[in-house]
Amino acid sequence: MVRTSLSGFPEWLPEGRIIEMHVLDELRRVFELHGFAGIETRAVETLEQLEAKGETSKEIYVLDRLQALKAAELGARAPKDKGMGLHFDLTVPFARYVVENANELDFPFKRYQIQKVWRGERPQDGRFREFTQADIDVVGNGELPFHFEVDLPLVMAEALNNLPIPPVRVLVNNRKVVQGVCDSLGVTDVEGALRGLDKIDKIGPEGVAVELAQSGISGDQASVLLRMAQVRSCDSAEIRQRLADLGVSGELLEEGLRELTELLDTANKRMPGVVVADLKIARGLDYYTGSVYESEIEGHEDLGSICSGGRYDSLAKDGKRTYPGVGLSIGVSRLVSRMISAPMVKASRKVPTAVVVAVITEDQRERSEAIAAALRARGISTDVAPSAAKFGKQIKFADKRGIPFVWFPGDDGAADTVKDIRTGEQVEADPATWTIPASDAVASVERVTD
Amino acid sequence: MVRTSLSGFPEWLPEGRIIEMHVLDELRRVFELHGFAGIETRAVETLEQLEAKGETSKEIYVLDRLQALKAAELGARAPKDKGMGLHFDLTVPFARYVVENANELDFPFKRYQIQKVWRGERPQDGRFREFTQADIDVVGNGELPFHFEVDLPLVMAEALNNLPIPPVRVLVNNRKVVQGVCDSLGVTDVEGALRGLDKIDKIGPEGVAVELAQSGISGDQASVLLRMAQVRSCDSAEIRQRLADLGVSGELLEEGLRELTELLDTANKRMPGVVVADLKIARGLDYYTGSVYESEIEGHEDLGSICSGGRYDSLAKDGKRTYPGVGLSIGVSRLVSRMISAPMVKASRKVPTAVVVAVITEDQRERSEAIAAALRARGISTDVAPSAAKFGKQIKFADKRGIPFVWFPGDDGAADTVKDIRTGEQVEADPATWTIPASDAVASVERVTD
Repeated sequence: MVRTSLSGFPEWLPEGRIIEMHVLDELRRVFELHGFAGIETRAVETLEQLEAKGETSKEIYVLDRLQALKAAELGARAPKDKGMGLHFDLTVPFARYVVENANELDFPFKRYQIQKVWRGERPQDGRFREFTQADIDVVGNGELPFHFEVDLPLVMAEALNNLPIPPVRVLVNNRKVVQGVCDSLGVTDVEGALRGLDKIDKIGPEGVAVELAQSGISGDQASVLLRMAQVRSCDSAEIRQRLADLGVSGELLEEGLRELTELLDTANKRMPGVVVADLKIARGLDYYTGSVYESEIEGHEDLGSICSGGRYDSLAKDGKRTYPGVGLSIGVSRLVSRMISAPMVKASRKVPTAVVVAVITEDQRERSEAIAAALRARGISTDVAPSAAKFGKQIKFADKRGIPFVWFPGDDGAADTVKDIRTGEQVEADPATWTIPASDAVASVERVTD
Repeated sequence: MVRTSLSGFPEWLPEGRIIEMHVLDELRRVFELHGFAGIETRAVETLEQLEAKGETSKEIYVLDRLQALKAAELGARAPKDKGMGLHFDLTVPFARYVVENANELDFPFKRYQIQKVWRGERPQDGRFREFTQADIDVVGNGELPFHFEVDLPLVMAEALNNLPIPPVRVLVNNRKVVQGVCDSLGVTDVEGALRGLDKIDKIGPEGVAVELAQSGISGDQASVLLRMAQVRSCDSAEIRQRLADLGVSGELLEEGLRELTELLDTANKRMPGVVVADLKIARGLDYYTGSVYESEIEGHEDLGSICSGGRYDSLAKDGKRTYPGVGLSIGVSRLVSRMISAPMVKASRKVPTAVVVAVITEDQRERSEAIAAALRARGISTDVAPSAAKFGKQIKFADKRGIPFVWFPGDDGAADTVKDIRTGEQVEADPATWTIPASDAVASVERVTD
């Protein structure tokens, strides 16, 4: 169900798209249930905006008008667009949108945004160059209370755990904890420590120790950092105990621990067992300033984090104001790709259609259209057979697409009948009153269990 | 509500986006009700695909990786992506998708596709460089019955007339009629005739006569073509009569008239008065092969056609097969832009939220969260006040966003109450049983009448 005639640019067949739309609809439903407003930003940003964070510049697709390029090749002077590129995430555009519209927005502003993003990297390890992200963020004007660092990951946990996939855990850490531990140990190259710890799953503790040494971190310091990185628990008392055992202390560490344990305690009340503190999380800690989030799907840990985010005290800035934010982003395409390929799920049919109305002869097509109109008026997705072929062929039209019902206009004043082509059961029916079983009304997406 | 910090790239404020999402949801609902399957194609096509139709090449945005460009500037050899650009419509990508997946698709294949497209033209007359289109097409394998040329414009008419906008008329013409008239008159430069007639609204009949003369069309021929272009009617008998009055005839003309009048007659039965034959429609007739469609919104004729399309006998082709198609495309961004700016409509609020739960003190935040969870479990979009400010300030939080209800947790064992902040009415309520008025459950979009 996945096609990529251009490497890195996935497309789904219709049944795959039904699965993707189910995911997108469910995410939107949960986000709106929690009061997030949907916005959409243009796909295009100025290169200046996109390059503000230097290290992502390699990923940008730059735009040029073909006409201008051709004119340039011919040596003519062509009007040059100011440097523009496709956005590579939804955070940079959102930050710009907030600053541009600050006077019209109500803060704290909670928004969700579900859009495609593009990254010009070489497609490797199945990485996509075009993919859909689903983000939620809350942004404050000047200040943003800590409780949003508890709320946001729980909204994502609810959204993800509503999908027909195995349980999703949200893993959390806190920049202040890691920074506090480094401060207490006298480690000054915190970025170096984070870079090293980030590789722990790939190269193991011994490999990380070597990396840390190269950043000028002593063996004793590295040993404590590696013990810290092994702390993983839902239980805030255990977290506190194990950090106390490391012999580290300090004001910032204490603040970080307060935040991390409050997040765990509240999460355990609202949604037991879903949020886990994992102190080896280092990715993003160089720019996040408080809580940081990753996630894993039970049994699909190899997929990596399909939902990540954190708190940044300076999501956006203009002349006078700073806008702190907390947010998370789901990599929808990567998730859907796994849902399809595993497979985790199956769509009940390839089309939205619940009923096909048969056509007796082409002269009587309008009778069939009238039946279809009556069914549609009652919200039932209905198609009319494309030709007045033999009924066997019209049934096959439905069967190939997974459409459950075929409707037969009654001949010579006889009542209409409707046939469930899965069971063969055929009953008299009136399009003004017939009710479709709820489970057949729309294409459904169900877990595949093997 | 419209912002364009980059010329030609519109963005909506949250209330504008609510209007756009209402439009997109309604279009999707109607398309699915008629059995169209939703697909999405990548935003990127090879230049080869995009340039297959020469005359559109000026509109293409070409992609390059920034890293490759920078390397080239430094004189280094960089891996060059094969020529890729952003799609400028949804027809070219759909045709490619059909050919690539022909073995997995079921024909006739009915699909809808709602996506952004990009055109690198100079933004003038409020033209957008990035905008959303909503397309429906049906494509056959080798053959495609005529009745789809009747069905498709009626689906679009239903979709558009379900929106909170003034009545939309679908205007139709038929390539075979115009070609047949030209043949009968001995006009050989049919393209020239179409180019001239296309300008009739802009430069008037006299101007068109001059243009036609330049294409080698005689005064007598031009006079008949101009009389043909004045024919506009819902009534198929009138159409036939007025063409007969022109003194033209021929087999192709007769076939075209049969199709055009069958379309009118069926449309008048299913949806009286919505479809109008308008023989001056010339745009697109150079590549459409049968019916051609445009549209107009009553009172907003100046906006031009916001929904256009037609029949093309060769939508797509591969080595062995030809795939004929019929389809129409709505320019959603242009429509929404007018809906907002006219204004035709108003959103009832700026957020999905129906209820804000007040917070008594920060220590009691979890009580408010529990109430919110109970309301959300029953499908009611609920937010919790961001801080335990004075109740007046918490009510203002709701009021600014247009949220109709504020929920107050009962103090000291008292029952909770919920207040309609529009009327001031406040009643006791239990989050497990309270029902919200249907009209307040979701943000609604209503016609503005002045």
